[in-house]
Amino acid sequence: MFTGSIFHTPGTLDACPLDGRMFIRLRAEKGLVAEAWMTYVCDKNLWFNARRKARLTLDISDSELDYFSVSVPMDDTRFAYIFELTDREGKLFYLSEEGLSETYEHDLGYFSFFQYTSQFPCDLMRVPEWVKTAVGYQIFPERFDIGNAGADKSYVNAKWGAKPTPRSFYGGDLDGVTKRLDYVKSLGVSFIYLTPVFKSISNHKYDIMDYENVDPAFGGNEALKRLIEAAHDRGMRIILDGVFNHTSNRHPFFVDAIKNGKKSKYFDWYFINPDGTYRTFGSVPYMPKLNTGNPEVISYFSSVCRNWMRDYGVDGWRLDVSDEISRRFLRRFREEIMAEREDAIIIGEDWHVAAHYLNGDEYDGTMNYGFTKACLDLFAFGTIDSKKFVDRLIRLYYSRSVAASEKMLNLLDSHDTDRFLTRVKGDARKQRAAIALMFFYPGIPCVYYGDEIGTEGGYDPDSRRTFDWNEDNWDKKTLECVKTLAALKKDPALSRGGFNLTESGGLVSITRTADGRSLKLTVNATGEANAGLGPWEYRIEDNRRNTK
Amino acid sequence: MFTGSIFHTPGTLDACPLDGRMFIRLRAEKGLVAEAWMTYVCDKNLWFNARRKARLTLDISDSELDYFSVSVPMDDTRFAYIFELTDREGKLFYLSEEGLSETYEHDLGYFSFFQYTSQFPCDLMRVPEWVKTAVGYQIFPERFDIGNAGADKSYVNAKWGAKPTPRSFYGGDLDGVTKRLDYVKSLGVSFIYLTPVFKSISNHKYDIMDYENVDPAFGGNEALKRLIEAAHDRGMRIILDGVFNHTSNRHPFFVDAIKNGKKSKYFDWYFINPDGTYRTFGSVPYMPKLNTGNPEVISYFSSVCRNWMRDYGVDGWRLDVSDEISRRFLRRFREEIMAEREDAIIIGEDWHVAAHYLNGDEYDGTMNYGFTKACLDLFAFGTIDSKKFVDRLIRLYYSRSVAASEKMLNLLDSHDTDRFLTRVKGDARKQRAAIALMFFYPGIPCVYYGDEIGTEGGYDPDSRRTFDWNEDNWDKKTLECVKTLAALKKDPALSRGGFNLTESGGLVSITRTADGRSLKLTVNATGEANAGLGPWEYRIEDNRRNTK
Repeated sequence: MFTGSIFHTPGTLDACPLDGRMFIRLRAEKGLVAEAWMTYVCDKNLWFNARRKARLTLDISDSELDYFSVSVPMDDTRFAYIFELTDREGKLFYLSEEGLSETYEHDLGYFSFFQYTSQFPCDLMRVPEWVKTAVGYQIFPERFDIGNAGADKSYVNAKWGAKPTPRSFYGGDLDGVTKRLDYVKSLGVSFIYLTPVFKSISNHKYDIMDYENVDPAFGGNEALKRLIEAAHDRGMRIILDGVFNHTSNRHPFFVDAIKNGKKSKYFDWYFINPDGTYRTFGSVPYMPKLNTGNPEVISYFSSVCRNWMRDYGVDGWRLDVSDEISRRFLRRFREEIMAEREDAIIIGEDWHVAAHYLNGDEYDGTMNYGFTKACLDLFAFGTIDSKKFVDRLIRLYYSRSVAASEKMLNLLDSHDTDRFLTRVKGDARKQRAAIALMFFYPGIPCVYYGDEIGTEGGYDPDSRRTFDWNEDNWDKKTLECVKTLAALKKDPALSRGGFNLTESGGLVSITRTADGRSLKLTVNATGEANAGLGPWEYRIEDNRRNTK
Repeated sequence: MFTGSIFHTPGTLDACPLDGRMFIRLRAEKGLVAEAWMTYVCDKNLWFNARRKARLTLDISDSELDYFSVSVPMDDTRFAYIFELTDREGKLFYLSEEGLSETYEHDLGYFSFFQYTSQFPCDLMRVPEWVKTAVGYQIFPERFDIGNAGADKSYVNAKWGAKPTPRSFYGGDLDGVTKRLDYVKSLGVSFIYLTPVFKSISNHKYDIMDYENVDPAFGGNEALKRLIEAAHDRGMRIILDGVFNHTSNRHPFFVDAIKNGKKSKYFDWYFINPDGTYRTFGSVPYMPKLNTGNPEVISYFSSVCRNWMRDYGVDGWRLDVSDEISRRFLRRFREEIMAEREDAIIIGEDWHVAAHYLNGDEYDGTMNYGFTKACLDLFAFGTIDSKKFVDRLIRLYYSRSVAASEKMLNLLDSHDTDRFLTRVKGDARKQRAAIALMFFYPGIPCVYYGDEIGTEGGYDPDSRRTFDWNEDNWDKKTLECVKTLAALKKDPALSRGGFNLTESGGLVSITRTADGRSLKLTVNATGEANAGLGPWEYRIEDNRRNTK
């Protein structure tokens, strides 16, 4: 057995305490390990006399690796464990510092067990109950609907339905969202993620001038209050977009810092050079970068966010460009937010695995662009086949902890990408198959507004078209697909079920199982009829109908 | 190429920003990768037009893996990168979410590069300059020397030199340490780590009754002040043992909590059950466990520690049972300590790899019992040969980041283990060879008081014998060994040099290289004469003597 073919990462990645149980995972080169056992104690001080054994099950295999796991109840928090693995040649121990070893002396075992011993409630991973069945819907408010036509709309320069430019204004507002809540609810959505709503001169509002006020064009603070109340009345939550990596260059703090230099209270809130230049988001001069390492900055934005939660009922935050924000900010921000609402959720914008941000002290999850890219490679670009696609999705799942995986925001597209339907050249079958995969894959499925009716659009600004409320233009089959899947997300199989993903002859299958009953999605990932499915079609089987 | 044979963990483990450079590491199955390149940008926004390439060098190989690395200067903090690997079959890309891939489209590269983009000073890994040449010396104050013979020593119940029992008191005190500072300094030591000194009825003082006062038997606060001043005068630092996992059951906070129950201000500082039982350290009833998740507890102990640093000049902390302390405590404690002294050091007591605690926000390093165990297995137990020993030390090194490795406290024994010399059955050659390895291995070597003169001792309490000040009894050869090596630790090769570790025919060699010049340690890890070395003897070669 080759040490390099056995993987177990302590920390939360492969040892994750959750809901009173410890989830332990182990990966091994495919076919190598015939049997895997864990010897463990919940209190490491009892290593000498109270060890127990539990067998790991083989949950899933990709083309190169087998993934084993076991979960055991925790009756103490000082968890310690080692593995015993059987291969063709016999039994080996797999230990923390020693790796694979033919021998193991329990009397000196404290030198080489794995452990996970600090499990204070404040440190624990958790998955709020509502998240398990959550279905998200992302709205770009300027483009969803006009709710308050009587408001000052003199800034509007584009006709609803016309092709957007970077500076188009259509007059969409928060009352427009409120007006359409029954529609959103009818999709089976449980939370709406709104791109930024605070005061800003742009249509996207990622350049914020005032974090304490909703943009007047969106209806001001009262419109947000109305929206949240109406959403809550319908059992839906509202998650706002927190833009803390940068402000607008028109924000009074920045204006003051530039004007008064080092004399300004806000000088150290940004990165201003002696020559008056400054660090920005990307190379966008109107978005000066905030110094999120500065405790005053952390304190201000945490406090603003808590106020929105307390006074308006905001349910969580998506953090823009969070991968460029200080870790100190992310940790303190989390503590403040959680002190306000324990079941709030924080989703980072990090396009990569970001497992080191997902240990319970920073984000809950991130926008899962790794999932997006795998779907694009299979359905749009054709750069991978169904076998590689399954490998990718399995690896991606195991690159994060059990708990973090359930809180990833899975998406096919967003305001920052082309529309998925456009990427697949308008082939709605591919889009629907990808949507089905998104709902079956562990995590929180999130539909970008309009995707459910077949809205197309290329890269920004084209992906931010106005919603087409003329039902005659809707792709009813896609709408039905989303509604069916969103309803299924409430099923125990999809909300808390075990996960298997397999490939066979161009068919991709995800099976989710809870209480011994399962839902199985099969996608024909080929351009030809296959096993009773047309090209790119999918089928959902509910084995409960077949049980006695 | 098998995906499972290529390893790169983003986060600090294999992507570590340090001193203005980014250190990138990659592991691969031995012999698999012929050439490894990194394509990177310091600002990920410039991925499309400013990519650079750097070749990774093969630094070290163990019996199964090759370890590659490269470091590049950072001119922006938004670092992004991918790998290009060449094997026998051709070139493959190694990407963040996609793993190994034959193709890579730079235009969609932002979907699948690795990144390390949040690098605020408050988040960065750092290695204080003094740590690079540091040599530690651990003292158990009750057993080092009696400095103030005139003090009340009525509690003393054992004669200096007699075999210790769990309740022996010999009368050692802090003035005893102060009195011997010139001796300690003469060893080449740069910091002393003192086991606990605060008020306690035990000889080890891990059950503390009062964190704000040094135990009177140790001379009280003034004795600590004298010691620290005298140490600082000699250019040595003092690191205290912080016992925050538990207090004594005689601590007034605990007494109050037990007496007044939920009415007590301190009730939530512990874990007290309705029946009056409580959680403890291990199963030691006189050590009630503190609730280190409680912000009041965090605030109190952080503040006490800051006071000791500010008022007495304490230079750092070793944290007892830190693996059972809340992560929230560890993070806030670090911020407080670093606000007081940027070059302070925090060493956790975690006997395992603990890489997830070593990302810059919790500990600097831990007591490296993994190193200890490898030395025991080779020299004392004979359970591994020199080849496996080298494998173990290499794996151990690569299980932590470049920065964390430099801050690990490497040790052969402590108050919590048998003496190393006793484990090797008194064979001083083995002890000296292990000491030499400890000084050459990256990290901070730390000598347990008495090891340098050949003190023996089994498990606690025997490992806590009184220091024998009669020089006639000293093993002068071991003393010389420690002095020579401590002096070498100031050499650039040992303090900041590159690291290679090889095995050949029973010889273990560590080579440390700085500025193209190197120091090489060779240990004969066999029981027979070998390559000019007697059994278990070592040799140090200084290639500078041989250069023109």
